[in-house]
Amino acid sequence: MTSETLAELLETMVNIPSETGREAAIADWVLARLSGHGRGECLRSGQAVVWRAPRRDRPLVILAGHLDTVPANGNSHARREDGRLYGLGSSDMKAGDAVTLALIESLDPDRLRFDLAAVFYDAEEGPADRNGLARLLEEMPWLKQARLAILLEPTDLRVELGCSGAMNAEVVVRGKSAHSARPWLGVNAVERAAGWLQSVTRFPVTPVSVHGVEFRETLQVTTLHAGRARNVVPDELRVNLNYRFPPDRTLADAERRLRALVPKDYECTVVDRAPPGQVCADAPEVREFIARAQAAVAGKQGWTDVARFTGAGVAAFNFGPGLAEKAHQADEYCPIDNLAAAYARLADFLGAERA
Amino acid sequence: MTSETLAELLETMVNIPSETGREAAIADWVLARLSGHGRGECLRSGQAVVWRAPRRDRPLVILAGHLDTVPANGNSHARREDGRLYGLGSSDMKAGDAVTLALIESLDPDRLRFDLAAVFYDAEEGPADRNGLARLLEEMPWLKQARLAILLEPTDLRVELGCSGAMNAEVVVRGKSAHSARPWLGVNAVERAAGWLQSVTRFPVTPVSVHGVEFRETLQVTTLHAGRARNVVPDELRVNLNYRFPPDRTLADAERRLRALVPKDYECTVVDRAPPGQVCADAPEVREFIARAQAAVAGKQGWTDVARFTGAGVAAFNFGPGLAEKAHQADEYCPIDNLAAAYARLADFLGAERA
Repeated sequence: MTSETLAELLETMVNIPSETGREAAIADWVLARLSGHGRGECLRSGQAVVWRAPRRDRPLVILAGHLDTVPANGNSHARREDGRLYGLGSSDMKAGDAVTLALIESLDPDRLRFDLAAVFYDAEEGPADRNGLARLLEEMPWLKQARLAILLEPTDLRVELGCSGAMNAEVVVRGKSAHSARPWLGVNAVERAAGWLQSVTRFPVTPVSVHGVEFRETLQVTTLHAGRARNVVPDELRVNLNYRFPPDRTLADAERRLRALVPKDYECTVVDRAPPGQVCADAPEVREFIARAQAAVAGKQGWTDVARFTGAGVAAFNFGPGLAEKAHQADEYCPIDNLAAAYARLADFLGAERA
Repeated sequence: MTSETLAELLETMVNIPSETGREAAIADWVLARLSGHGRGECLRSGQAVVWRAPRRDRPLVILAGHLDTVPANGNSHARREDGRLYGLGSSDMKAGDAVTLALIESLDPDRLRFDLAAVFYDAEEGPADRNGLARLLEEMPWLKQARLAILLEPTDLRVELGCSGAMNAEVVVRGKSAHSARPWLGVNAVERAAGWLQSVTRFPVTPVSVHGVEFRETLQVTTLHAGRARNVVPDELRVNLNYRFPPDRTLADAERRLRALVPKDYECTVVDRAPPGQVCADAPEVREFIARAQAAVAGKQGWTDVARFTGAGVAAFNFGPGLAEKAHQADEYCPIDNLAAAYARLADFLGAERA
């Protein structure tokens, strides 16, 4: 499979708008393409498409990617320049989707070492409770029988194991209003919280090794609001704490740890939480993939649907041609050479001849 | 003059709406009442009314009060309860205006020790640059020839000398955005500012004695904003510092002192400033008023138009029947007994028989 063929495929996919909630056109396009191909079975669910090869009692491997993108930012049309394919979703993660499509279309399922399925799902970039993969795992319980799921999220051809958990807590510190000329009649919420703000913002970026790969525990004050007028002592300070924690913590552990950082007399409400994805470093298929692909290995600093697969009992990791640091940026691009490299490593692992 | 007569007058005035910018109805009412009275001269300027007795080459005393109120807060109708007159503006400062009106109507100017004038002005509660008194001092330069101005602002029958100066500064601390899972790629503006926030919120309420009366120097963080999303490292923290300073400082002194509290690499913009009012403790008329009224004396913690009179070279102080701590409150009221007491002390000072 040449980079040129894959780049054309990716260019076509980038040019089909698919902002979260509006994935119908790209799901139609994927479905039409896979139906025309003939081999295997296509299942449509909402704005998602699932493909599976005939079962042969071999271990099942799932290739998975979301079809949606964040909103366009002047980058809705694909263009090529200097060996890069620019455009919305080019890295996150239509590059992975294009490689998956090419694998399905070019490999002979009968010659693979695995039973194969692919999931092209909707609404990953939106709120977690509408995530298409969650729905598909409910609707198609056979997906949970897989031996391995590979998320083709952007990793620049590294294997990124697991993923961080994420939690947001809203902390409210109360005071009492007063005219700012007579502050002794009130309690300034900012003054009350200032010492705590200083200590909580000093939370260090802490490396944590889990099954031999490194994650970084982080805590950031991401929003902060107090006061309604220049001449009134503020009676409330509202702080958002964004906490990222390594996969060796449960949500309950993480919440305990987060709450321990907040004085008991402040209000603290956890407003959302996403579990971490487990590091599947010891699963034989994972070790084999890493060895065959000669891939660099790291922890996934950030949240991906590896968490949803490992939460459902399926070993999973991230491996894709895109660049994570270009995700959600106006100048998002994917290195075109990465497409063929990702294709080759996945094809090799799945048991085909080397490309 | 009985409390009942004064209470009826105040009740009428409270029931005439006069939110800042909409003082025409109450100015019409004051003008009609003073014109009907016959003695002295009435001058209308915009939504303000100035009255003056015939000049007899005696020292000129001005009684001054603003007619406007802050917006209503479910308290636009006057009511009496437990010896209090409740309603918008009852303390701040239609109680003072009612006493001034009653003095003009009941005292014989020929029998006073002073030439007398009264200023009922507009737009004190709004932005300083539209304050009606500032306009009147320009339009009627004879007002600046006064020996004394008494501001009938709410002081609960105390003499409150001078007034604090006020200054607001907006401080901006810059950082660099990043995904909150990778904070090391950015600079968190809240983290950068947290140590400073702690020190600046510890600014103590500091008593400062000026000509024997106490003012309190205060510095409050009144508003604080940072961050645009729960998962983004904030690149900016915006803080309002509200500074109140005693009358022995110039605006330039105050600004130097305020800026010295802000690190040089933060942005600091003074967004408004009001000069302090001078303490006129040594003016003979002020000493005499205090002695005759047997009034408690204090510094005015807050800003009033005493600053505008003393800035124009006229000795001035605050003395009124209202309660400052009820100003701008939904449950604003004036003790009815305070009305006759204020009337009596002013009448006595002006040279009339004791009531």
